[in-house]
Amino acid sequence: MSVLPAAFLDALSARFTDRFSTAVAVREQHGHGESHHTGVIPDGVVYAESTEEVSFVVGLCAAHDIPVIAYGAGTSLEGHLIALRGGISLDLSRMNRVTRVSPSDLDCTVQAGVTREALNSHLRDQGLFFPIDPGANASIGGMAATRASGTNAVRYGTMRENVLALTVVLPTGQVIHTGGRARKSSAGYDLTRLFVGSEGTLGIITEVTLRLYGIPESISVALCSFDDVGQAVEAATAIVQLGVPVARMELMDRGLISAVNRYSGLDLTVDDKLAFEFHGSPGSVEEHVRLVGEVVTDAGGRNFEWATSPEDRNRLWKARHNAFYAVVSQRPGAKGWSSDVCVPVSELGNCILHAREILKGCQVPAAILGHVGDGNFHVVFAVDPGNAEELAEVARLNKKMVHKAISVGGTCTGEHGVGIGKMAYLREEHGDAVDLMALLKHAVDPKGILNPGKIVGQA
Amino acid sequence: MSVLPAAFLDALSARFTDRFSTAVAVREQHGHGESHHTGVIPDGVVYAESTEEVSFVVGLCAAHDIPVIAYGAGTSLEGHLIALRGGISLDLSRMNRVTRVSPSDLDCTVQAGVTREALNSHLRDQGLFFPIDPGANASIGGMAATRASGTNAVRYGTMRENVLALTVVLPTGQVIHTGGRARKSSAGYDLTRLFVGSEGTLGIITEVTLRLYGIPESISVALCSFDDVGQAVEAATAIVQLGVPVARMELMDRGLISAVNRYSGLDLTVDDKLAFEFHGSPGSVEEHVRLVGEVVTDAGGRNFEWATSPEDRNRLWKARHNAFYAVVSQRPGAKGWSSDVCVPVSELGNCILHAREILKGCQVPAAILGHVGDGNFHVVFAVDPGNAEELAEVARLNKKMVHKAISVGGTCTGEHGVGIGKMAYLREEHGDAVDLMALLKHAVDPKGILNPGKIVGQA
Repeated sequence: MSVLPAAFLDALSARFTDRFSTAVAVREQHGHGESHHTGVIPDGVVYAESTEEVSFVVGLCAAHDIPVIAYGAGTSLEGHLIALRGGISLDLSRMNRVTRVSPSDLDCTVQAGVTREALNSHLRDQGLFFPIDPGANASIGGMAATRASGTNAVRYGTMRENVLALTVVLPTGQVIHTGGRARKSSAGYDLTRLFVGSEGTLGIITEVTLRLYGIPESISVALCSFDDVGQAVEAATAIVQLGVPVARMELMDRGLISAVNRYSGLDLTVDDKLAFEFHGSPGSVEEHVRLVGEVVTDAGGRNFEWATSPEDRNRLWKARHNAFYAVVSQRPGAKGWSSDVCVPVSELGNCILHAREILKGCQVPAAILGHVGDGNFHVVFAVDPGNAEELAEVARLNKKMVHKAISVGGTCTGEHGVGIGKMAYLREEHGDAVDLMALLKHAVDPKGILNPGKIVGQA
Repeated sequence: MSVLPAAFLDALSARFTDRFSTAVAVREQHGHGESHHTGVIPDGVVYAESTEEVSFVVGLCAAHDIPVIAYGAGTSLEGHLIALRGGISLDLSRMNRVTRVSPSDLDCTVQAGVTREALNSHLRDQGLFFPIDPGANASIGGMAATRASGTNAVRYGTMRENVLALTVVLPTGQVIHTGGRARKSSAGYDLTRLFVGSEGTLGIITEVTLRLYGIPESISVALCSFDDVGQAVEAATAIVQLGVPVARMELMDRGLISAVNRYSGLDLTVDDKLAFEFHGSPGSVEEHVRLVGEVVTDAGGRNFEWATSPEDRNRLWKARHNAFYAVVSQRPGAKGWSSDVCVPVSELGNCILHAREILKGCQVPAAILGHVGDGNFHVVFAVDPGNAEELAEVARLNKKMVHKAISVGGTCTGEHGVGIGKMAYLREEHGDAVDLMALLKHAVDPKGILNPGKIVGQA
């Protein structure tokens, strides 16, 4: 039974008819992401199809002081979608049009609900691609809102570098446009970057203008094996420091390889691996492959396996993308809990060593993977969500990893966002700058209706 | 005679002794940048030597409601330094220490007053460089505050992409640290990007952590000639669209070449030119040179002249960096007025054609130059600052160029900032998003003491 006021319910029903639902099943689906965080269901779900509709819903919520939480593909890992104070889940998945592609400017504009896979399908025939790739088939709006990145960030940057402009609905319902199509601008405060990573707490992103890239002339993928994660990290660090422009450089420990083999039906040798992708002209790819080969061999790596056909490449990266699900599926009924620290590259070896040390006594199945070119790695735990002791243990281990990362100048979250999962660490990482974040939140959303209780609180 | 209250004067004198000055000559030096904008002198100048001293000054200014304007190298082009409401010019040029360089992480931390040339001198022995290069020997703090870029941005990005972290003094005097040393983070609002480009209106940047790059193994520089600016732009656009990773690609029209020859003692053939720089391994540089050569020839370019020795390269880029001064020096007593639009690359040819059309009847000496790989170009006028008619004519031409740029999705300022010179265009470019900028300004600096009258007003 909904607690929403009658006038509010009537207004939504009149405007959205069957695109407004208070059915429990629909609400349950919208009250959580894909991780261990316990869901809280919203009071209603609206499926918006335009910026104007988003503006209508937010304006109505503002008038009634009702929370509103943007929902894209539901792949959040830090509890962003949890309706802590109830309210409306505003589902943008039907805003799925690519509204403009400009091959000559290498940019495009999409509605927030377009997923990264749908966008890349759309672009392929034009020889273009959008590189940011968090693994999950997230929505572009959600990726912008959490400042997502993933396997290609070492070469192409994150959503921070690749969003040119946004259409945003403010907490009043007002629609603004930030940024523009010029590659650079000094025209005032960088509102685009303020909304990128704001997790739906300052405004709701409804359209995104993105940088695109030409599909490289030559793409090459290789796996190599190490006896030890430490050797693999040593090689990865040396490659970054040499400035070799690898397009992807992913660490997968042997635990992960086992899980991936089972989940994706592969038969990779079970050892610690680095996976590389190279983009460029045939000449430059050859040069980079040679350089990386030398570094890997020096560090004790071996068994370069090349995935040359597009099918083999896709199979490998699909398996990597499913790593989170692969680890979780090892244990029936388990939920995934992923750590997400990111540190200066010179500290990565120490931090991964530290993570392996503290994992030694841990009974919860876990695997290590990482976008090691960026200094970002994850420990994915398959936790029993009903076992309080287990949850407490993983929380304790996660906390240790975060402390370690922050102590060396790193961050509690490289790409998953704060949500409710990392709020406890923000002050440790940013000190009193957190007060400025709260001040900005209060200035922009004084009623606290946008995704309340996330990032800087106001639950 | 200063209008500053006695208690305020006493507090500054006691703390800073001879590093606080109300001498007219010192104040006059601090009330303007390098362009045509009429200066207004501050009431006093403080030379700060630490973040703690900046905090003291800002706190004192806050207590007395006195404006405070950060001053770096004084190379601003849009009136950022003009003391519209008097107050204190806070000179940070003595905060000139490089506090940390980490070759293994390719980053460093510098005090705000370090200039880009001083930084690169400091880094050279370690095989590193900082690429952002606005021409003038600006301070890193000033470059961050105006979101500067310059000739290398086509390859390395702007200050937006290359600042990792900041130390900022807020309008209360409070010191905060934004960002961190990890290459990426999703930990809360992107305060770093909020301060980058905020032109001293939200906080005073006192320390900057920057990304660095290894000095490329191979560097190659070439000039080529065209009969027409249109051909040069066509070639430049094609090179961007092909995705050739040139490190620099600069347009210089024949008027500029004449001026540069005279000012820098060169004997370049007087025609429209593109200047290129290539960075990489010998193999990749060779490949890029070949590709660019093909495109240039197709577009009607000719006479590739190579600058192979470091001395020749430096002479060429020094001449390019002095282009602004070269144009201005053609006319005794003149001041420089530089337009700064930036547009999607596919619109660049049209916009430059438009600029040339409207320049046809103009009697004020002018030259066109541009960071054409980014879609950014400047028309530099040498104006007589005492001639109101001339100033009005240039203002009118500039306005037309801005209208044109904004109409094709571009920006009124690619890299110089808003200051007072571009305030009139912000609403045309950003619409109601300007109200959000003003709201943020008011929230962070409710008394309006930080660089009042810039970006969003509150003069």
